[in-house]
Amino acid sequence: MKEQKIPKETIKRLPLYYRCLNRLVVLGKDTLSSTELSEYLGIKPTQIRKDLSYFGDFGTRGVGYDLRKLFKEIESILNLERSWNIAIAGVSNIGCAIMDLLDFNHSGFNIVAAFDSDNRVVGSNIYGITIQDLDNLKECTADEPIDIGIIAVDPVDAREVANCLVDKGVKGIVNFAPTLLNLPKEIEVVQMDLTSELGWLVFYIGHR
Amino acid sequence: MKEQKIPKETIKRLPLYYRCLNRLVVLGKDTLSSTELSEYLGIKPTQIRKDLSYFGDFGTRGVGYDLRKLFKEIESILNLERSWNIAIAGVSNIGCAIMDLLDFNHSGFNIVAAFDSDNRVVGSNIYGITIQDLDNLKECTADEPIDIGIIAVDPVDAREVANCLVDKGVKGIVNFAPTLLNLPKEIEVVQMDLTSELGWLVFYIGHR
Repeated sequence: MKEQKIPKETIKRLPLYYRCLNRLVVLGKDTLSSTELSEYLGIKPTQIRKDLSYFGDFGTRGVGYDLRKLFKEIESILNLERSWNIAIAGVSNIGCAIMDLLDFNHSGFNIVAAFDSDNRVVGSNIYGITIQDLDNLKECTADEPIDIGIIAVDPVDAREVANCLVDKGVKGIVNFAPTLLNLPKEIEVVQMDLTSELGWLVFYIGHR
Repeated sequence: MKEQKIPKETIKRLPLYYRCLNRLVVLGKDTLSSTELSEYLGIKPTQIRKDLSYFGDFGTRGVGYDLRKLFKEIESILNLERSWNIAIAGVSNIGCAIMDLLDFNHSGFNIVAAFDSDNRVVGSNIYGITIQDLDNLKECTADEPIDIGIIAVDPVDAREVANCLVDKGVKGIVNFAPTLLNLPKEIEVVQMDLTSELGWLVFYIGHR
């Protein structure tokens, strides 16, 4: 497999393949054609065949794909053979919904620490995690290293929180605050800010 | 202004400019230099000057940008002079957090209808909106046209819900479900699926 040659759009689809294949393997399926996979995924069979061809030969004409082998390969490519530790900053509303989502998904992403600035929440327990004071983020000692930070705090606090998380050694950040973060190039950042996305959406709707 | 020439990355930043300028105007500021704006936005002054140059001449050397004029122009470009009606499908956890976010933001995005499949929630009132049965989405009559649909339902239901929303006349969809939607090309879709974003994040972390 030559990773460098895989298009970004294919990589973007891998988590969807991963989740779909996981469900099919759990359901006891062994093989499935690209046409059948297309039904589940909402991706054209030709696109599926092209995407998967980057990772090796998993299909047999007339039989379909070896689902377990394919699942294992995509799991390995996505680095989901191991689990990833997450710290979440901000647990009001969106933060709490995220905790519920990850807890429910058993997705290989473990929340190991959670922080909030609201005194009424600090010390309480959400999904088995004791909420720590956001002010203690700098000093906190997690039992396990934190790989990824999720930021769901007030926009004005987002940059400082991001810097603290980087000091803690996170390698990637998902930012739900509508604030651009200025982080070192080696930190991967995913921006997930609804009002920005809506702004961008209506720009394109209006300019059609 | 030649819209066609504006780079996508600049457009992506416009909602952040918009929100920041809005706050500064409300705070009573009249002018601000690109260096001061840079502090607020976390964007380099050179980038700010370049971005804003696409939309006209708002700055005076030594004085700074005319904030109100700039704000009005960006508001117009983003089509935020008018308000946009939103229907939200799925109000458990993430959906509820979205309702809270939009209600709190007074952002020009109005939730005019909300749907859920959970009998315990249908008929209840969240942020002034009576939750309707998701099964009625097809037949529901909204008092006002729906511009945008937000999907926060189970992944297996997302595609059907999306089709219903398109039948209702929405022009854009924000999809929080980890499901690819197959919609007509004229419908703008923003995919906001946390576990896919996390999958993609750890791919890049692992392949550094």
